[in-house]
Amino acid sequence: MQDFDRRREALLAAAAHVFAARGYHRTSMRDLARASRMSLAGMYYYVAGKEDLLFEIQKGCFERVRQAAEEAVAGAATPEDRLGAFIRHHVVFFASHMDEMKVLSHEAESLTGPRLEEVRALKKAYVDLCLELLAALDAQDGSHRTDRHVAAYTLFGMMNWIYTWYDPAGPVGVEELAESICRLFLNGYAAEVQVR
Amino acid sequence: MQDFDRRREALLAAAAHVFAARGYHRTSMRDLARASRMSLAGMYYYVAGKEDLLFEIQKGCFERVRQAAEEAVAGAATPEDRLGAFIRHHVVFFASHMDEMKVLSHEAESLTGPRLEEVRALKKAYVDLCLELLAALDAQDGSHRTDRHVAAYTLFGMMNWIYTWYDPAGPVGVEELAESICRLFLNGYAAEVQVR
Repeated sequence: MQDFDRRREALLAAAAHVFAARGYHRTSMRDLARASRMSLAGMYYYVAGKEDLLFEIQKGCFERVRQAAEEAVAGAATPEDRLGAFIRHHVVFFASHMDEMKVLSHEAESLTGPRLEEVRALKKAYVDLCLELLAALDAQDGSHRTDRHVAAYTLFGMMNWIYTWYDPAGPVGVEELAESICRLFLNGYAAEVQVR
Repeated sequence: MQDFDRRREALLAAAAHVFAARGYHRTSMRDLARASRMSLAGMYYYVAGKEDLLFEIQKGCFERVRQAAEEAVAGAATPEDRLGAFIRHHVVFFASHMDEMKVLSHEAESLTGPRLEEVRALKKAYVDLCLELLAALDAQDGSHRTDRHVAAYTLFGMMNWIYTWYDPAGPVGVEELAESICRLFLNGYAAEVQVR
């Protein structure tokens, strides 16, 4: 990674931390300069301003998580394994990006105009990937279970809520957390075949 | 309900709506007066100020949801039915209090001092009720499944995330939503007995 990119990444991570702690609207460029140990002028070398920072955090997060999810899914053989790989990857990724997850959640409506539209499109593409994996599982079992959007957003709730309670330094390791969420959802979803 | 209580309830609901839309810190007493169609002086007749409003919203929400959950649970015969009653009640309650749910989530750390402590204690009591219901199910099956805190917070994630996506006026009715979440979790949790 070039020096420019590395410093820009560090700035985005520091900004995500401040936005998560104080909220986007309460944060000033001065707060961000202090947290990232840059001068105000130095910061403007990397980003155009506060909204640009929020945009780059959200955009970068959705792009990276989606690309890595597609790679994780590609290595799995069955529809169930693919969905399992998606779940494990999402949990492990965000367990180490909890500031970003809080920012994605709390500041989903803080962007405006074309930036908001671009992030919404990236988010939709990621949700669509999840919906496709659920559809593939339904097709394999010849069953349309519970409303697929309800299933997808319930799954995202299980996974995303971790930013409110999970402590990566606590007694439950990230792998164990990912396995638990993966099993709870896959078993619950599998049972829907018999229920309906 | 007395006229004073009724107007105070209406003020709390209007304030929850504004806090959910704008965020607590960006909201002024003037914004709240406008939204609740009261004068500033009139508002101070009901609450001591902005933080008091946030406190009363959070406190009232946790007190009401817990009391009603205990009533819902008391009418069920088995540990599984009790947990099911808890889940259905939580989803139905918050599907009609999505502003309050967003405020509970986004402004969990916006209170300070004794008010913060009091709301945290109310929240803990409600989470403890859920943990007891999970423990009763484990005891019945003679099995300690996945880490019980992971199970409880994963369940709260499934249920609470609805404020980010669910539209009560959309194609999925509240009862159907509650049933889907209830089945997904109970079936997933039941399967843990065999897995471990």
